Amino acid sequence: MRVDINSDLGESFGNYKIGNDVEVMKYISSANIACGFHAGDPIVMERTIKLALENNVAIGAHPGYPDLQGFGRREMNLSSKEIKSYVSYQVSALKGMTESLGGKLQHVKAHGAMYNQASNNYEKAKAIAEAVHKIDPEIIFMGLANSMMIEAAKETGLQTACEVFADRTYTQKGTLVSRSLEGAVIHDSKYCNERVLQMVKGGTVLDIKGNTIVLQADSICIHGDNPTAIELAKSVKLHLEQNGITIQSLKA
Amino acid sequence: MRVDINSDLGESFGNYKIGNDVEVMKYISSANIACGFHAGDPIVMERTIKLALENNVAIGAHPGYPDLQGFGRREMNLSSKEIKSYVSYQVSALKGMTESLGGKLQHVKAHGAMYNQASNNYEKAKAIAEAVHKIDPEIIFMGLANSMMIEAAKETGLQTACEVFADRTYTQKGTLVSRSLEGAVIHDSKYCNERVLQMVKGGTVLDIKGNTIVLQADSICIHGDNPTAIELAKSVKLHLEQNGITIQSLKA
Amino acid sequence: MRVDINSDLGESFGNYKIGNDVEVMKYISSANIACGFHAGDPIVMERTIKLALENNVAIGAHPGYPDLQGFGRREMNLSSKEIKSYVSYQVSALKGMTESLGGKLQHVKAHGAMYNQASNNYEKAKAIAEAVHKIDPEIIFMGLANSMMIEAAKETGLQTACEVFADRTYTQKGTLVSRSLEGAVIHDSKYCNERVLQMVKGGTVLDIKGNTIVLQADSICIHGDNPTAIELAKSVKLHLEQNGITIQSLKA
Amino acid sequence: MRVDINSDLGESFGNYKIGNDVEVMKYISSANIACGFHAGDPIVMERTIKLALENNVAIGAHPGYPDLQGFGRREMNLSSKEIKSYVSYQVSALKGMTESLGGKLQHVKAHGAMYNQASNNYEKAKAIAEAVHKIDPEIIFMGLANSMMIEAAKETGLQTACEVFADRTYTQKGTLVSRSLEGAVIHDSKYCNERVLQMVKGGTVLDIKGNTIVLQADSICIHGDNPTAIELAKSVKLHLEQNGITIQSLKA
Repeated sequence: MRVDINSDLGESFGNYKIGNDVEVMKYISSANIACGFHAGDPIVMERTIKLALENNVAIGAHPGYPDLQGFGRREMNLSSKEIKSYVSYQVSALKGMTESLGGKLQHVKAHGAMYNQASNNYEKAKAIAEAVHKIDPEIIFMGLANSMMIEAAKETGLQTACEVFADRTYTQKGTLVSRSLEGAVIHDSKYCNERVLQMVKGGTVLDIKGNTIVLQADSICIHGDNPTAIELAKSVKLHLEQNGITIQSLKA
Repeated sequence: MRVDINSDLGESFGNYKIGNDVEVMKYISSANIACGFHAGDPIVMERTIKLALENNVAIGAHPGYPDLQGFGRREMNLSSKEIKSYVSYQVSALKGMTESLGGKLQHVKAHGAMYNQASNNYEKAKAIAEAVHKIDPEIIFMGLANSMMIEAAKETGLQTACEVFADRTYTQKGTLVSRSLEGAVIHDSKYCNERVLQMVKGGTVLDIKGNTIVLQADSICIHGDNPTAIELAKSVKLHLEQNGITIQSLKA
Repeated sequence: MRVDINSDLGESFGNYKIGNDVEVMKYISSANIACGFHAGDPIVMERTIKLALENNVAIGAHPGYPDLQGFGRREMNLSSKEIKSYVSYQVSALKGMTESLGGKLQHVKAHGAMYNQASNNYEKAKAIAEAVHKIDPEIIFMGLANSMMIEAAKETGLQTACEVFADRTYTQKGTLVSRSLEGAVIHDSKYCNERVLQMVKGGTVLDIKGNTIVLQADSICIHGDNPTAIELAKSVKLHLEQNGITIQSLKA
Repeated sequence: MRVDINSDLGESFGNYKIGNDVEVMKYISSANIACGFHAGDPIVMERTIKLALENNVAIGAHPGYPDLQGFGRREMNLSSKEIKSYVSYQVSALKGMTESLGGKLQHVKAHGAMYNQASNNYEKAKAIAEAVHKIDPEIIFMGLANSMMIEAAKETGLQTACEVFADRTYTQKGTLVSRSLEGAVIHDSKYCNERVLQMVKGGTVLDIKGNTIVLQADSICIHGDNPTAIELAKSVKLHLEQNGITIQSLKA
């Protein structure tokens, strides 16, 4: 039994540093690297690609909205055509740079508001999936388990990776409870570990009302922008391994 | 006997339109497409790639400095590392988008201040050439004839295309006379036609002092941002063809 | 009897030119000048301010969303705090530059998606109004007649100028029919002239269903980005003057 | 006897945090606040202005080149007209926002490459000074002691504040030894303290060759982006006060 662990990396920009990519790389099997629209720049991208290659971590593109000031987290009303072009540009840039450095692009995962809007909006999800498919139909599309993104990617002919979250609660529909609501984030790392194990082995999780949701857990998203997050990452990885789960990238 | 005619296209941005790409495409065999740093955006890039494919015009990436406000024409003191990363990013983006649309990247030509600075600066020229080579050693490097760019590209192992200008005068060193100086631009289209023919057939041109310069003319640069420029393009193409020169892209 | 005519100007950016500001200045009494977020740059702003001063046209700031690529026309989900700060920044910049050149800021009018979203959203409208009021309570707030913007500005303690459109149709609620719908734009200039005169003199206009709407017409918005628009501007101005209406800026 | 202590603050951007403004505010009398071109954004600017007002620290604008990716530290070949407009825009924005919040702009100090280039280039220095003078001739122009900036500002009719550095060595010409050279930065805080005291009381400092340079010390620049820098700030302030020097803003 196996599962992937992914994290959003390469989010620094110019003189600005965010996250602790060196440390996080130790606990993950796939890296989602920002592509310069919401975060990242060409120098940061190359550095992060090299770091992933050195750590034998699979590389993914992490495209976002053109909104550096809002870190790609603010909803923008873009047309499908705009989303498709923006994704094509960003994924192409990251893919070419990765290949320049001797690597290969494994997957694509949308960022922030693009991810959230595409979770519930089939048209936007389809725009992302089509851009990816046109670049290379072998690229894996990573998206929220049970969301429109997985549906759209499958219909486009892409392989998919269903993403689950260790420390976030779920609504009855299987989407994430908004961070603005109480109870959205789970702070008990032991409970996180158990939830993750149940998602990976059992394919279910309890929603915020206590009902069982069925979900496929191909990849677990962890954060690395603070010491607590890194502790959780470490703890989740260890707990999975102690229970016989192998941590492996999606294509490994 | 053959020669390529190239032009800088895809320089619109968002709601802003520049140039008359539809018209210029008729007179050229290679298009240098802006990549979003000094001009262009993902929507414009896709539109221009499609237009080139429809017109059977070869596609090149036209990377520039990250200075939209200055249209990439202002000198910036970037390190070799920065130039290399910025070129890698931009060329990768344009290449991936071109392949997405069924095309293939033929060449790379630097834009504006990057082009000018690299003409006289071996280190900067080498940075561009190395970025291109790492992406794909088959990409042709287009640069000013007799400049550091051609030298650096050859030493990096790239094929080169020496660019000449129909309506610009040359210094004794074979570089372009600065636009800020008198006599930099030739306005007599008949004289332009003769100069171009001599460059292509004879491999020489008279410099601003009247001395003969030896230069290789693989590609002629034309502009298309005003009606006069388009007239010149048309006239140069016709004159070459009437003298038995075939207009062909670099790889055709 | 009097009315103001306003137009959005200074929308060029760097090497990119939009509109025909020199021509439009002849037919207006107030200029809304872009402030560098959705359009305009410091060089363009200064040039446009000077042009307005030379033409004795009153100067207004025209702040927008930070989205040059979308020309500020794409909805963004910004917080009130963000809108307030962004307006404060842009209006302060334009105001200071105007005063540097010997002028005085008359009014503020929001642009594009910010204008549209604030028309229907009291909270966003209030954020704009509060930013303006804090800079100078004497600045006039220009907004769509009958919209939330006028309401919020009044409650904030600002003077208001109700804006009407010569060539746009109205819904029953008094808002503009979306450009994406049939019949949104009126192309018959004679009919435009009559409508404008009725709005200014009678304070009413027929909505798209033919019902009468009451609206205050302090300022008429005209466009100047194409020859037809300039013809309409000229025609509207002439028709008003021939009917005894004086064209005057808001504070004149 | 008195002197000002200044620091560059408000350099965060969106989700990106730089520096420890809350801590640094304790040791300074004047804050140079970034204006959104090389660092800072409207939200950060307002927060920093409020913080300065709460700490009774005088407020200055800190304009830079339009190069967020390079933090305004990369030389750009801008015309005097461009520099003048860019400074006018940025200073106007910061001034208006400061006044909105009940404060008053005390001074302007250029940032990074703009500061360095204007130190040695009279034309660039004059462009900055003229922009400031047109906004308000009462604004104090802060610049490197003995540099072209001070000269240009005086000739423009502005009051000047000569800036000195606690931990940097000087060339024989009185300019700073480039950070890229050995011995540019002094790490012995005790020696820094003595140098600063001598500059303030004696008006001299030893250059890197050991010769005496005459320089006026109106304001001491300190950094606050790391714990060592804050320790030095604290130490310099204490040493000055223990020697009877009052730390006061320029206009206090």
